[in-house]
Amino acid sequence: MGPHPAVADVRRAVREALADVPQGASVLVACSGGADSLALAAALGFVAPRAGLRAGLLTVDHQLQPGSAERARTVAEVGSGELGLDPAEVLTVEVGTAGGPEAAAREARYGALAAAADRLGADAVLLGHTRDDQAETVLLGLARGSGPRSLSGMAAVSGRYRRPFLDLPRATTVAACAALGLAPWDDPHNDDPRFTRVRVRRKVLPVLEAELGPGVADALARTARLAREDADALDIWAGSAYTDCALSDIAAPGKPVELSVAKLEKLPDAVRRRVLRRAALAAGAPSGALSATHVLAVDRLVTRWRGQKAVDLPGGLTAVRRYGTLILAITPIP
Amino acid sequence: MGPHPAVADVRRAVREALADVPQGASVLVACSGGADSLALAAALGFVAPRAGLRAGLLTVDHQLQPGSAERARTVAEVGSGELGLDPAEVLTVEVGTAGGPEAAAREARYGALAAAADRLGADAVLLGHTRDDQAETVLLGLARGSGPRSLSGMAAVSGRYRRPFLDLPRATTVAACAALGLAPWDDPHNDDPRFTRVRVRRKVLPVLEAELGPGVADALARTARLAREDADALDIWAGSAYTDCALSDIAAPGKPVELSVAKLEKLPDAVRRRVLRRAALAAGAPSGALSATHVLAVDRLVTRWRGQKAVDLPGGLTAVRRYGTLILAITPIP
Repeated sequence: MGPHPAVADVRRAVREALADVPQGASVLVACSGGADSLALAAALGFVAPRAGLRAGLLTVDHQLQPGSAERARTVAEVGSGELGLDPAEVLTVEVGTAGGPEAAAREARYGALAAAADRLGADAVLLGHTRDDQAETVLLGLARGSGPRSLSGMAAVSGRYRRPFLDLPRATTVAACAALGLAPWDDPHNDDPRFTRVRVRRKVLPVLEAELGPGVADALARTARLAREDADALDIWAGSAYTDCALSDIAAPGKPVELSVAKLEKLPDAVRRRVLRRAALAAGAPSGALSATHVLAVDRLVTRWRGQKAVDLPGGLTAVRRYGTLILAITPIP
Repeated sequence: MGPHPAVADVRRAVREALADVPQGASVLVACSGGADSLALAAALGFVAPRAGLRAGLLTVDHQLQPGSAERARTVAEVGSGELGLDPAEVLTVEVGTAGGPEAAAREARYGALAAAADRLGADAVLLGHTRDDQAETVLLGLARGSGPRSLSGMAAVSGRYRRPFLDLPRATTVAACAALGLAPWDDPHNDDPRFTRVRVRRKVLPVLEAELGPGVADALARTARLAREDADALDIWAGSAYTDCALSDIAAPGKPVELSVAKLEKLPDAVRRRVLRRAALAAGAPSGALSATHVLAVDRLVTRWRGQKAVDLPGGLTAVRRYGTLILAITPIP
């Protein structure tokens, strides 16, 4: 008799996600103790020795809830005990306030994971995000309306991070934990409707499934994959088009950028706007402050030229058109 | 005192949508009598004479509801009367059953509009779709999960069709009709929950707005615009990459297509898959039957080559890899 189907699914997902990792490499799993990352830790504990990999566990104590230290210790004990992961470490972090509670916790968590991965010489760090998380991320991106890049969700592989469960429903991780006799921890934050993501999970996705059909989470995850591929390809095109349009030395960031209007005019809208965004960032615009509206205003200097004056951009940057040249430069202080 | 703000908005939208139409040209509006297309017809009746354009109205009697002929006559009378549109014609159509009730009605409607536009020598046909329709279309595309092209919604300009209200909320057209003393017709189909679009409008969008914020319809419409631009640019790239990869004469549709694997391998995923889709269609696969899964199977002959056998595609098409060449051809019948 083989393992429970859900257990087989999570193990297969981890095996496939690690297929290109060389024997003897070290893999860590980031585990909160929730069903997703607990199933991931269990699957890694099973797969790693059979694949000739060393496997350890990291759990982050955010110090935001009473009893978080004890819970983190418990997760580490389960990891080093029945899951056979070594090392199994608690990383205690101080969460700041910048960018709101979710962003601040995320920044503290990834900072600690990256430092531990460096210290432990890990080749890969596994994250437990599921297809449901991916669907939620796509809907959050959709609500921002900032286009295909914001629809592309989370990457299956991003640097040292890997997300083996991005194609698995959350229900599979819950079932795998149950079949393995593991008791996941239910983070009360996952039910707190002050978080937009929680509202997406509890209210929006169920309505979408009810009205549009049960395949919505899968469709959203598929959209993410396709949107990511498209955005990657367009970034490649924009990169070479930027080099081709540049009349100035674009190797030096923060220096004025000059672009050929005649060459910009020949590009498709999607590529030209990406080139203009790159140019504005290279010339010194802060990326967080540079909006699509700013880029469109610069674009009109190219495509709807009727002698406009300079366009002001964040960071004291100005875009002007002089004869056939578009110039982006920090405004000289008089 | 100027016109009501909503009336000013619908007139401005029509004026901008027709800015590139030469004086003396003939413009038609497709009007169901609903608020969107009634406001559109009224705006066209106001704008056209001031812009030196001839303007007429078409209304389609689908013969699907009792009283539809009389209602269509009323719409035409309002058009030729107070809206000053000439001609104002009723187009009576027979709706088939192919593809379901919505698709069959759409096909009959567009067929009749196209024939009338040809007969009347119209340079443009205006359609009343609003930003809310666009948001609904994006959500329907999202539920299909077929990627950025299905998220790109309706085009502002597509051949002779133009949609001046794609950036206006439906509320504006309702307010414009009220301000002009026009009584729009409420199509009972717009409240029939058997239609997926109606459920999206009545159930899904309100939940998204409540949970994610009131800007969701706008964000969805913005997503549509960006997704369309991206898809257009990638189609351009795929078109030239297809020509570049082809080892056979690709000018003859239905003939076997041969592609260089070495060149395909160098393309980004998003472009290579579009090239493979083009190749399969050119070699004779029926477009409605060719799915993303089929294309991915062909793609694995390029990117995950381990000596697979031929991939079967719709329409009796087969894809095989022979040395460095990918061949798509209708299977010879033995």
